[in-house]
Amino acid sequence: MKLLEEKIRQDGTAVNEHILKVDSFINHQVDPALMQEMGREIADHFRNRGITKVATIESSGISPALMTALSLEVPMVILKKQPSKILNQDLYQTVVTSFTKETNYELTLSKKYITSEDHVLLVDDFLANGEAATAAIRLIRMSHATIAGLGVLIEKSFQPGHEKLKGQGIEVYALARIGKMGENYIEFWE
Amino acid sequence: MKLLEEKIRQDGTAVNEHILKVDSFINHQVDPALMQEMGREIADHFRNRGITKVATIESSGISPALMTALSLEVPMVILKKQPSKILNQDLYQTVVTSFTKETNYELTLSKKYITSEDHVLLVDDFLANGEAATAAIRLIRMSHATIAGLGVLIEKSFQPGHEKLKGQGIEVYALARIGKMGENYIEFWE
Repeated sequence: MKLLEEKIRQDGTAVNEHILKVDSFINHQVDPALMQEMGREIADHFRNRGITKVATIESSGISPALMTALSLEVPMVILKKQPSKILNQDLYQTVVTSFTKETNYELTLSKKYITSEDHVLLVDDFLANGEAATAAIRLIRMSHATIAGLGVLIEKSFQPGHEKLKGQGIEVYALARIGKMGENYIEFWE
Repeated sequence: MKLLEEKIRQDGTAVNEHILKVDSFINHQVDPALMQEMGREIADHFRNRGITKVATIESSGISPALMTALSLEVPMVILKKQPSKILNQDLYQTVVTSFTKETNYELTLSKKYITSEDHVLLVDDFLANGEAATAAIRLIRMSHATIAGLGVLIEKSFQPGHEKLKGQGIEVYALARIGKMGENYIEFWE
């Protein structure tokens, strides 16, 4: 998606070979019109495949997932990072190791919101090592739902997430694929 | 907002006098079309007041805030619950006591995204005791920005949040105001 690549070139910062800062329009400050465009683009790619739910991981996946779900006219389900006492105890649960935060956390899903009837599109902001996505897919599969694929805004293609998910039979669609980056340069893959 | 009141009556559950579960359309599973309607309604209430940013608190405020910001055609800024190592160190920080989670957490804001030039509308899903909103306003005011008001989806009007914020000179606009509730009944205020 040319629009996103241009925005990354203009407002993103490659801090080093691994860290890309896009907190001026994706993570911390969010550009709602761009987010709507990006959600529509992911929705268009996966349209007419019988998707019944869009799922995402709390919290930076919420904006792209909400816009994708809006365009596909299906509910969004947020996989929660910890059980809240307001949710009931009827939950699927799994543990995720976060590369960014260097911590483990628990991902939870109420059994009510994804069932064996569902065909689920997972949406997130970033794909890097694929740890969060792999855990999310593991969690969704506990419900015996099927997975339509993974849509992400930005993929760090030099990290193993894409290949790892492909190996599990998951189609990955990324709006921008970064092949290589370093201090102040970013190389995109077509 | 009649639409939201009807939805709460239909799909919400008053567990007891204090806990309202709306996790089938607001918190855990999200209805994107309803969320867009609600965001537009909050935006319409505060339109033409020179709002430059919509701010919200991670993470259940993100959906309504994104839709409000989309309608107002301004950026959304997410007040983060903890500093990420990807963000730079140039942050405002404050501590919040959470009633729901019974814990303290740190709320942070990058100094880049809200400045003294901004007129900020705060948006969240719930207003109850007003602890999170009060902390968010304290954080935003560190930047010397001005506050246009607080827009929320659901206000528990029997808790002190609304009065507390009014006392600080903050206009509160809630799409649904719950005057009283208990096991299986909910009373709305006009």
